Amino acid sequence: MAKNVGILAMDIYFPPTCVQQEALEAHDGASKGKYTIGLGQECMAFCSEVEDVISMSLTAVTNLLEKYKIDPKQIGRLEVGSETVIDKSKSIKTFLMQIFEKFGNTDIEGVDSTNACYGGTAALFNCVNWVESSSWDGRYGLVVCTDSAVYAEGPARPTGGAAAVVMLVGPDAPVAFESKLRGSHMSHAYDFYKPNLASEYPVVDGKLSQTCYLMALDTCYKCLCSKYEKLEGKQFSLSNADYFVFHSPYNKLVQKSFARLLFNDFMRNASSVDEATKEKLGPFSTLSGDESYQSRDLEKFGALADTMHRQVSQQLAKPLYDAKVQPSTLIPKQVGNMYTASLYAALASLIHNKHSELDGKRVVLFSYGSGLTATMFSLKLSEGRHPFSLSNILSVMNVAGKLKSRHEFPPENFVEVMKLMEHRYGAKDFVTSKDSSLLAPGTYYLTEVDSMYRRFYAKKPADVTNCENGSLANGH
Amino acid sequence: MAKNVGILAMDIYFPPTCVQQEALEAHDGASKGKYTIGLGQECMAFCSEVEDVISMSLTAVTNLLEKYKIDPKQIGRLEVGSETVIDKSKSIKTFLMQIFEKFGNTDIEGVDSTNACYGGTAALFNCVNWVESSSWDGRYGLVVCTDSAVYAEGPARPTGGAAAVVMLVGPDAPVAFESKLRGSHMSHAYDFYKPNLASEYPVVDGKLSQTCYLMALDTCYKCLCSKYEKLEGKQFSLSNADYFVFHSPYNKLVQKSFARLLFNDFMRNASSVDEATKEKLGPFSTLSGDESYQSRDLEKFGALADTMHRQVSQQLAKPLYDAKVQPSTLIPKQVGNMYTASLYAALASLIHNKHSELDGKRVVLFSYGSGLTATMFSLKLSEGRHPFSLSNILSVMNVAGKLKSRHEFPPENFVEVMKLMEHRYGAKDFVTSKDSSLLAPGTYYLTEVDSMYRRFYAKKPADVTNCENGSLANGH
Repeated sequence: MAKNVGILAMDIYFPPTCVQQEALEAHDGASKGKYTIGLGQECMAFCSEVEDVISMSLTAVTNLLEKYKIDPKQIGRLEVGSETVIDKSKSIKTFLMQIFEKFGNTDIEGVDSTNACYGGTAALFNCVNWVESSSWDGRYGLVVCTDSAVYAEGPARPTGGAAAVVMLVGPDAPVAFESKLRGSHMSHAYDFYKPNLASEYPVVDGKLSQTCYLMALDTCYKCLCSKYEKLEGKQFSLSNADYFVFHSPYNKLVQKSFARLLFNDFMRNASSVDEATKEKLGPFSTLSGDESYQSRDLEKFGALADTMHRQVSQQLAKPLYDAKVQPSTLIPKQVGNMYTASLYAALASLIHNKHSELDGKRVVLFSYGSGLTATMFSLKLSEGRHPFSLSNILSVMNVAGKLKSRHEFPPENFVEVMKLMEHRYGAKDFVTSKDSSLLAPGTYYLTEVDSMYRRFYAKKPADVTNCENGSLANGH
Repeated sequence: MAKNVGILAMDIYFPPTCVQQEALEAHDGASKGKYTIGLGQECMAFCSEVEDVISMSLTAVTNLLEKYKIDPKQIGRLEVGSETVIDKSKSIKTFLMQIFEKFGNTDIEGVDSTNACYGGTAALFNCVNWVESSSWDGRYGLVVCTDSAVYAEGPARPTGGAAAVVMLVGPDAPVAFESKLRGSHMSHAYDFYKPNLASEYPVVDGKLSQTCYLMALDTCYKCLCSKYEKLEGKQFSLSNADYFVFHSPYNKLVQKSFARLLFNDFMRNASSVDEATKEKLGPFSTLSGDESYQSRDLEKFGALADTMHRQVSQQLAKPLYDAKVQPSTLIPKQVGNMYTASLYAALASLIHNKHSELDGKRVVLFSYGSGLTATMFSLKLSEGRHPFSLSNILSVMNVAGKLKSRHEFPPENFVEVMKLMEHRYGAKDFVTSKDSSLLAPGTYYLTEVDSMYRRFYAKKPADVTNCENGSLANGH
């Protein structure tokens, strides 16, 4: 069986069009700090009328193959995780086949995986399992997470975002799975869903969704701890992992989540929890998962979790958070919720911020998709060998450059784009502006949807340095 | 690594409501034989207003667990393949979690896989790979294929159908995968797709879809043959498999497909093709795949394939078809196109018809999903051990009983149901008739969709023998 299977290489694409959360706060008439401190978000990327989940993933896959010099014939599996539905039957994966058909490679397994923000994790697990299975043919797997998160006008709108992350999967990876160290929690819930088929916007019960997230986190952590203890014969606690990476709908929830894990260690009487912490957490011991789940008193659970977060995360968890979580929060805070891509954009942030310190480190990730599906799982990092090394991943992703070369839209223009996109969603028989001036060289963009709903894309030439947009040529 | 991983157990559910194709022909004013001979279909099942893909899969999963006496805690993975979208974000898998949550089992990986009729195959492959991977925890996998195929009034309407197939996956299976014997063809095409998000009906280019299907079949077969030859050092031809099972949008395409495979053997100069066949097929050698693909002359390709089918399948392929294909066509002809469930309903038909003769036999399956994704793969059958034996699968599925106890609707009433379902698709805030009188005991049915689009289901008591519907109590 193939060993140390995991992520060999990765890249991230997000639209260069964005809006500052501070400006959006003012525009929306929200209280100062509501989005920036209350949600913990800084900036939000969005697709303009020439971009969508298909164009973003065409760009990301093409970039990865080129930058890591991967022969398209060497891809044996390609899977997509997404919850942004453009077609209810035809997968995004089939659009991406255009890249490989040119090279005569159509023998590529895999389709799209769907459940809210979790689809990318499902695709990644599937791809890793494939490499470890008897059906593996020795080629690479490719996993794409691509989403555009948009919300109706109102309190959820600032929690949007858009991106595509692509990951190359194979053996002897610098980002390797510890496959036995994994706990899932899957359940039937209506916290966030998309039953209004004609609308791009979800139906969201924000409070319920936060509670579901935290409950799933508890259950997954307990499950992972119990598996670790069975395997290793000793207790698992926060001290057993170097970094924790969370699915990030907005940063405040990530802060709460980490405080919640600390609370779990306290409840499990973990030896790593010191006396001062025990004293401070004592009053919250009624917040024990089992009780609150059984009573189904979600509101009480949510309120207590909020209180605990305010008191605990600022005092007790803060130093640990800064060390173990903060390095993974850069892109999610700057780009927003990228749904399936969100967790892997956080992993990319960790590599961006800590690349030289990651060799030998354990990273625990928490993936959550409303509805609901959740898994906590563990990765073991090593520097790896070029081109599949953490330092090369860092250099290819060029996160700082991509963030720097973005174009900030005033909130008014952002709202205009959202209005246009509402009309365009599910529509046919239109051409776009075909304006690629804001896009980096090599970026795909939507040109037309014909009367049969067929979608056409063009690619901005990759080799031309656009003089008028010099920063883009550097940035991307 | 786990050995002989595959299907341990299976069950099928289809609605008891159906319409005869002969009656539909007359009602639609179609020429006599258009549906029954032209399409090769006999009867078509459809969901009435109390059934949908969620209720059908709740029923199928519950039945399988009960009939094979599987402890719900012993399920470690659950995956769904479907192209019938009720919610664009929340997976059907999360609805099925209700069955397992009752038993305290929420640690169940897997979500929904999507690409037209291929999603079930993707889910099955994922599940098999999981059992062979290092992340397998020793429990069973469960794969559900569930779809309701409905078409707008017009020529495609008689190609509908509805069903859910459920398969238990694990090692030492009576239906085991030969994982190295597999060829895929995936490509970007607009043959059948669902871009009109508010409508349940697809956009279909029937002619193109047939051509895409046959081209994908050619490519997959070539790929599988070439892999076999590399592995075994000898040629693969139709004579190397005992049965061929095809995804069946309608039976005529299955007939054409088998003729096409024979033609492939002829073009590859397979030793199994006799002189008489070579002579008859000579005139069609311009139908060579490579040429027709390059010229992109799809219409010509389709026309020639039609001609060849008429001349060849009736004469040359017919005896072989009767022996190697016909036994798998029962349910698809009686129930219609079940999309993701179609291929596995065909496999169920084969087990139903040939159970006692299958020990040691090789079955080659062809899975096709428009858009397009296709794989040809091989299974090795053995009798197995109770409860995971072919004879027990036969007895649990009770195909004959289920077919016999159906309720034929006059075409007028079928059309009425379709009209009601058009209004109900994507709708909220309604209650159904809650009429379960036509359903078998133990069947789930839809009772309500509330103002927040939340769906509610009830289960018809399983232990009560319904005196007024005695046939149902036997049949299901």
